[in-house]
Amino acid sequence: MSDSVAGLGEFGLIEAMTRRSSPGEGVLLGPGDDAAVTAAPDGRVVVTTDLLLEQQHFRRDWSAAGDVGHKAAAQNLADIAAMGARPTAVTVGLGVPPDLPAAWAVEFMDGVRAECEPVGCSVVGGDVVRADTVVVAVTALGDLDGGAPVTRGGARAGDVVALCGRLGWAEAGYRVLSRGFRTPRAVVEAHRRPQVPYDAGPEAARLRASAMCDVSDGLLADLGHIADASDVLIDVDPAAVEVPDQLREVAGALGADPLHWVLTGGDDNALVATFPPETPLPQRWHVIGVVLDAGEQPAGDDAGAAGRVLVGGAAYTEGAGHDHFR
Amino acid sequence: MSDSVAGLGEFGLIEAMTRRSSPGEGVLLGPGDDAAVTAAPDGRVVVTTDLLLEQQHFRRDWSAAGDVGHKAAAQNLADIAAMGARPTAVTVGLGVPPDLPAAWAVEFMDGVRAECEPVGCSVVGGDVVRADTVVVAVTALGDLDGGAPVTRGGARAGDVVALCGRLGWAEAGYRVLSRGFRTPRAVVEAHRRPQVPYDAGPEAARLRASAMCDVSDGLLADLGHIADASDVLIDVDPAAVEVPDQLREVAGALGADPLHWVLTGGDDNALVATFPPETPLPQRWHVIGVVLDAGEQPAGDDAGAAGRVLVGGAAYTEGAGHDHFR
Repeated sequence: MSDSVAGLGEFGLIEAMTRRSSPGEGVLLGPGDDAAVTAAPDGRVVVTTDLLLEQQHFRRDWSAAGDVGHKAAAQNLADIAAMGARPTAVTVGLGVPPDLPAAWAVEFMDGVRAECEPVGCSVVGGDVVRADTVVVAVTALGDLDGGAPVTRGGARAGDVVALCGRLGWAEAGYRVLSRGFRTPRAVVEAHRRPQVPYDAGPEAARLRASAMCDVSDGLLADLGHIADASDVLIDVDPAAVEVPDQLREVAGALGADPLHWVLTGGDDNALVATFPPETPLPQRWHVIGVVLDAGEQPAGDDAGAAGRVLVGGAAYTEGAGHDHFR
Repeated sequence: MSDSVAGLGEFGLIEAMTRRSSPGEGVLLGPGDDAAVTAAPDGRVVVTTDLLLEQQHFRRDWSAAGDVGHKAAAQNLADIAAMGARPTAVTVGLGVPPDLPAAWAVEFMDGVRAECEPVGCSVVGGDVVRADTVVVAVTALGDLDGGAPVTRGGARAGDVVALCGRLGWAEAGYRVLSRGFRTPRAVVEAHRRPQVPYDAGPEAARLRASAMCDVSDGLLADLGHIADASDVLIDVDPAAVEVPDQLREVAGALGADPLHWVLTGGDDNALVATFPPETPLPQRWHVIGVVLDAGEQPAGDDAGAAGRVLVGGAAYTEGAGHDHFR
């Protein structure tokens, strides 16, 4: 029992989970009081939250504790970056079964911290409770450093659509794990820990991106959110969307279409943004499409968000998006 | 199925849950984007988070959806107030079973909002996921309006200990519900929705409270946190602690000690603070004890936080505090 969460007890567990933390420079009051205090130099704070449940969002037999920590942090930090902001602080709520090894909780927190620290973000607070299965609730805060937030609603006809980061990798990893395989390692690792180009978010804001979001639901679904909020059409050029050889190989082995993974797979947390056409884009931003006037929708297509994103000028009919309840 | 969460679908549910919201004046960008943006005029932000799980923290047969929303918000807003801050924004993560009535989720959110709005706080974002039982994760942000945060660590020998708010009521309600009763209504309601004097937090900060926390674990346990963080002893005068007639009656009927409920019952989220002895206290702050030098601990008492809080000059031996895992 001494190695379990129950053996350590609530306060022992919190002590073990926070032992290795050293508050970052923006942390004015770290964990241990009723609340934390963190710097918000901009005078505005960007805030987002995500809930991750065992079985629903991760499996302990597929991902190590550290992986779950990295991923839970990453998907929140990516949301902050997608506003054009710099992540500053996170809080972590953790529900744990009494028989969970205490090391799992400690390694989970180490993963959260390891994802946060390179971007100058700190874990400033949290809550640990008893649960039947592992429950993770992360909230991230960010600072806009004086800039305007980049919403989903500013895309204009004529803008280019550009992508920074990877697509389809996490989906490939998920498919591989679902078939009972543990390799190729690169795609399995991509499922476990997204590689998010966080600083590309503030970069896009400085370049005056007109709209931006992170790709968590899948490229077409997330572009649909931009198209919907901006009341425009978006046309993705399939020839411009990179399909890496490694994804082609994995898809070939599983009898799947790698382009479909790239267009609809979630969880890689790439950043996708629209820019005025004359914007000089840094090399890591790849133009993958254009923004069209909403009136240019091809005849016969469905209305609504799904019909607002075209692939090569036509509706993409293999279905995009994800509804947790259906 | 159309009345269930699954029937409404993820986006329909989010739409139903956010329909009635009107963002407050500090909300610069409300729900619906990757993240929200809220004002932080002070240049610092106070942040706290709590996780509430069905069965563990609330029961749907004991509390209505609106009650759960009120309580989840209240315990986070109380943590913000306990730093001397004014709550500004909350995010809400909600895990729901597919067969949960959609009305439950909507009424839950209405409860969160109804708790927040009177103090000028807004729901700025959230996440809805599928879960086996209801999971609630609330994060609250607050603004210090230029003041210093009141931590647990500043109590000094000679300070008075003062209380604002109710104690023992939620515990009485819990005991009543545990025995299968639904009345007296006043104590049952107290279990369902705490009545927190939020503005007493900033008030105590303006009065230069030396330490403060909210009473969530029980008076003696939470004073133990102050005593521990401040390295002092605290002596509670049992004659100064109000035991309301209604609690006496309920305790009498259940064969319990009402003073024990007042000293150890949690979940009322009263605020307890220490003040320099000459501080002129508003009427709603009741002096209930004094801060002593750590060296004044009676011989033979245990060291540690439990031994740091005395009742009438002696150790309180009926046990205080709560460990979620033991």
